Amino acid sequence: MPAKTVPPCPFAPMRPSYLSRDDEFFMKLAYNQALKAWASGEVPVGAVVEYGGEIVAAAHNMVESARDPTAHAEMLAITQTAMKLGGWRLNGATIYVTKEPCPMCAGACVMSRLTRAVYAVEDPSMGFLGGAMKFHDLSTLNHSLQVSSGVLREDCLKMLKTFFALKRNMDE
Amino acid sequence: MPAKTVPPCPFAPMRPSYLSRDDEFFMKLAYNQALKAWASGEVPVGAVVEYGGEIVAAAHNMVESARDPTAHAEMLAITQTAMKLGGWRLNGATIYVTKEPCPMCAGACVMSRLTRAVYAVEDPSMGFLGGAMKFHDLSTLNHSLQVSSGVLREDCLKMLKTFFALKRNMDE
Repeated sequence: MPAKTVPPCPFAPMRPSYLSRDDEFFMKLAYNQALKAWASGEVPVGAVVEYGGEIVAAAHNMVESARDPTAHAEMLAITQTAMKLGGWRLNGATIYVTKEPCPMCAGACVMSRLTRAVYAVEDPSMGFLGGAMKFHDLSTLNHSLQVSSGVLREDCLKMLKTFFALKRNMDE
Repeated sequence: MPAKTVPPCPFAPMRPSYLSRDDEFFMKLAYNQALKAWASGEVPVGAVVEYGGEIVAAAHNMVESARDPTAHAEMLAITQTAMKLGGWRLNGATIYVTKEPCPMCAGACVMSRLTRAVYAVEDPSMGFLGGAMKFHDLSTLNHSLQVSSGVLREDCLKMLKTFFALKRNMDE
């Protein structure tokens, strides 16, 4: 989907207060990343990673612009985090993402040994952290991933639904 | 695992005949990629991608050297293939990998719309294309991935087993 076929984005960035660093704070930053994805012609999904109370990674979906099927927001954020922490084991880090991770990204969350994954909108068909499958509950996994969902759900859902509705209108 | 802690590799590269481009031919090239992983201090897993009878990607595990938990052989080979084909939809391409893909890589095989995945050694605990889970059979997937296993199994299994046995001896 090149940028020209994407409708203008009617949403404004959020301005979370840096005084309260709770799940909602970090998800608002992920939301803003999703807006950046939209502005660059991508399906609007964004992610940030928190470690020790600080943001160590922020990324958005780049599949179309990078022409790379692995360039999901979560994958890019995980790679950024590894660069920042200086190793591939990301224990202690939490990823915040506006949509439930797909199988690839859910797998990456576990393989990278993230401590926790938080997502806003569930995905019953391709979500692998509760939607289509509870991948993190698989008994053979050698790493335990905590999962939370529904944080900032309405805002993130509205953005995704609006994107696809406007996109459909534009394509017709 | 830095290079210095990896035992010397006792295996030699295979020399497949380019006259017969069957599954075994491509898996032998994946095997040689796995040897390169070993030589650079990584768990020996290799992958190649075939498209239209030609090799369009060849990669090996680089998690340790890239310090990136997403740098599995399959992920790198998939990204290479997308670069080569000029888009992220890899329909028509087949990936050959020496070990059954993990959840992340199995997810990437589906998300990138590869036509087929062929692996040598099954992984009952983390393999997601038949071992721990038949991910490709999930009813909600919007892409069908053909899967074959057992090609060049004995050679690839021997390499992996030898690597971990020598590694254990070295660490003790």
